[in-house]
Amino acid sequence: MALVVKKFGGSSLSSTKLFERAAGKVIDARDAGEDVVVVLSAMGDETDRLLLLAKAITDNPSPREMDVLLTAGERVSMALFSISLVERGCAARSYTGSQVPIITDSNHRRARIEEIGTERLLEDISQGIVPVVAGFQGVDRHRNITTLGRGGSDTTAVALAVALKADECQIFTDVEGVYTTDPRIVPQARKLDRITFEEMLELSSSGSKVVQIRAVKFAARHKLPLRVLSSFDVGDGTLITDEETQVEAPEISGIAYNKNEAEIVILGLKDHPSAAAQVFKPLSDADIQIDMIVQNPASDGGVDLGFTVGRDDFHAASDIATKVVGEGATVVGNERVAKITVVGMGIRSHPGTASLVFEALAGEGISVRMISTSEIKISVLVDEKYLELGVRTLHEAFGLDVKKA
Amino acid sequence: MALVVKKFGGSSLSSTKLFERAAGKVIDARDAGEDVVVVLSAMGDETDRLLLLAKAITDNPSPREMDVLLTAGERVSMALFSISLVERGCAARSYTGSQVPIITDSNHRRARIEEIGTERLLEDISQGIVPVVAGFQGVDRHRNITTLGRGGSDTTAVALAVALKADECQIFTDVEGVYTTDPRIVPQARKLDRITFEEMLELSSSGSKVVQIRAVKFAARHKLPLRVLSSFDVGDGTLITDEETQVEAPEISGIAYNKNEAEIVILGLKDHPSAAAQVFKPLSDADIQIDMIVQNPASDGGVDLGFTVGRDDFHAASDIATKVVGEGATVVGNERVAKITVVGMGIRSHPGTASLVFEALAGEGISVRMISTSEIKISVLVDEKYLELGVRTLHEAFGLDVKKA
Repeated sequence: MALVVKKFGGSSLSSTKLFERAAGKVIDARDAGEDVVVVLSAMGDETDRLLLLAKAITDNPSPREMDVLLTAGERVSMALFSISLVERGCAARSYTGSQVPIITDSNHRRARIEEIGTERLLEDISQGIVPVVAGFQGVDRHRNITTLGRGGSDTTAVALAVALKADECQIFTDVEGVYTTDPRIVPQARKLDRITFEEMLELSSSGSKVVQIRAVKFAARHKLPLRVLSSFDVGDGTLITDEETQVEAPEISGIAYNKNEAEIVILGLKDHPSAAAQVFKPLSDADIQIDMIVQNPASDGGVDLGFTVGRDDFHAASDIATKVVGEGATVVGNERVAKITVVGMGIRSHPGTASLVFEALAGEGISVRMISTSEIKISVLVDEKYLELGVRTLHEAFGLDVKKA
Repeated sequence: MALVVKKFGGSSLSSTKLFERAAGKVIDARDAGEDVVVVLSAMGDETDRLLLLAKAITDNPSPREMDVLLTAGERVSMALFSISLVERGCAARSYTGSQVPIITDSNHRRARIEEIGTERLLEDISQGIVPVVAGFQGVDRHRNITTLGRGGSDTTAVALAVALKADECQIFTDVEGVYTTDPRIVPQARKLDRITFEEMLELSSSGSKVVQIRAVKFAARHKLPLRVLSSFDVGDGTLITDEETQVEAPEISGIAYNKNEAEIVILGLKDHPSAAAQVFKPLSDADIQIDMIVQNPASDGGVDLGFTVGRDDFHAASDIATKVVGEGATVVGNERVAKITVVGMGIRSHPGTASLVFEALAGEGISVRMISTSEIKISVLVDEKYLELGVRTLHEAFGLDVKKA
């Protein structure tokens, strides 16, 4: 009998009506012969409500106590979900992170899972009882409550699935699966039936938020099939698996984008081997993450060094860069840029993909300000105003639009 | 250094502002040299909110899962309280029932405490850290979450104080202490400085709701001084202690009342030794609690048997009584009655108290329908319409009114 871990996110649990609907998904699966373990997030915006309560007291709350506070959210979810299952005649039993136990390190608010006890859950499964587990939370070795950070429920689901040697981990959300791009920008976007872990990781890190990237990495490392599907509709969603198991991967899977980009260019930096390091070391010390980097020879014998940071870090990064480069070089910033990323297993075998990207964008008069590539993705930085047009153009150029009947 | 357990109820925690006020009480006590352990209820009407969520799914939820659900309430309180203490520079650490641990039996929704682990709390206290413990909740020996039933937070506080050998347990509430009677009925009601456990138990069981009766019993059994005081005002509240430690107990401590009474009288019951048992056995089988009982010889050689039950049970009790007595006897019911109870250690040594009660009530034209007495209380049943007048009359007759300056 297949064992499946099913995780329901906050948007699938924003009212008691929705609990009953999600419980229905579990019961249908059981009727179809699956063994099920449920993992839950907090209801709708419950986590935000709890954060506001703490914020009314202080901007800088004790991390240990914030973990205690926030874990109240999944506790309510797991109780209501179990009540819904039992009400429909399905034996169920809820478990907090401590009860499982999901043992983590002691880094409050961003703990890492170290070990999962599976004994109680396996015992339940063998007796036909559905264990309903609180996502996002764990307990350290000194019995303090910990949380895994935002989106940690996906990680809980995958980690549990790995520990239980489940056949699949299913992430139920408010969309039907992973799309070739954001349907709000490109109405012709198609739902993908399958995608590889590598592609999903590139999509996630380039702005697609359908599954937590940490959970995808965890699943990839353990080759655990991960499926994204809707808790509101029927359908098989999108299966995310290892490349080897994909019979026929499409050349290009999707187009992601990210508006949280700001560009900084240092013009006329003196050209010596440690020039870039002199800039990036203090940025890294200030905990500022660099995304894209390009370096071009400048006319005066120096170099022009461009890079992007998150918009929140833009001002801090500009200040640091200005201080570091001193006189002679000029720091130019631009907050109104966006990154578009083409992702696909086919890129590694088709060196022409990059030129197709340039051609298609040029055809619409969109200039590429920076470019960065990996084996399976090509990212370009464009003026923010061209974001939607660029995404639509590339979506069509790579033949991702819905085939007309 | 005195060790004091301080419990704050829901009305003392209905906003984040009030958390800061309550935290201030703890910090003042520490500044005055006390070691403090805090016990908390859920915020304001949080428990009712959670009950409503479950009720939207089913009227008959799984008791195990209801305990999981309801314990989310104190979890939020303990986190916010600890955050408030830490914010004011007072080291604090929160504990759920499982974390303490407070080990109970497995009766969900009305569990009894079996054992309390004090190691972690004593360790905290020795390091100057204030442990902040969730009231109302525990864990059974199979690591299932349990609750102690409504008002269980008072019981948690007293049980913890006993286990920690604390010097005093303080119940912070929205009134200044225990009053000679309900100030809403008698504006002249006085706050008592001291009262004995026995008197408090009589007052509680006669309708005074300031402390849970179960917690008073627990404190009485262990001779743990219990103090009721306001979280909104300063003042020493009311100290509830063992009789022996009360230097000069007043003759009469207070007047309690209870509107939740209904009277049933069986006229002309055949007089044989098991007559009363024949009536009360089926009532007890139906889980109906009997409060007052009187039995008088009737003119026809039988007896008249009167008793009171809670109003909710009135119709069921009348039906059972009618069925049991059969023909010959008549069952007469009255839902509009109320009980007034005079409580005081002085009653046992002053046989004249009962007659003073009758005289005072008769002076106002109030007839007594039933009477029941114990060593330290006299309860009378009157028509409900006389309740307020009766309470005021007795309050004045026993000299309980505030002394005029």
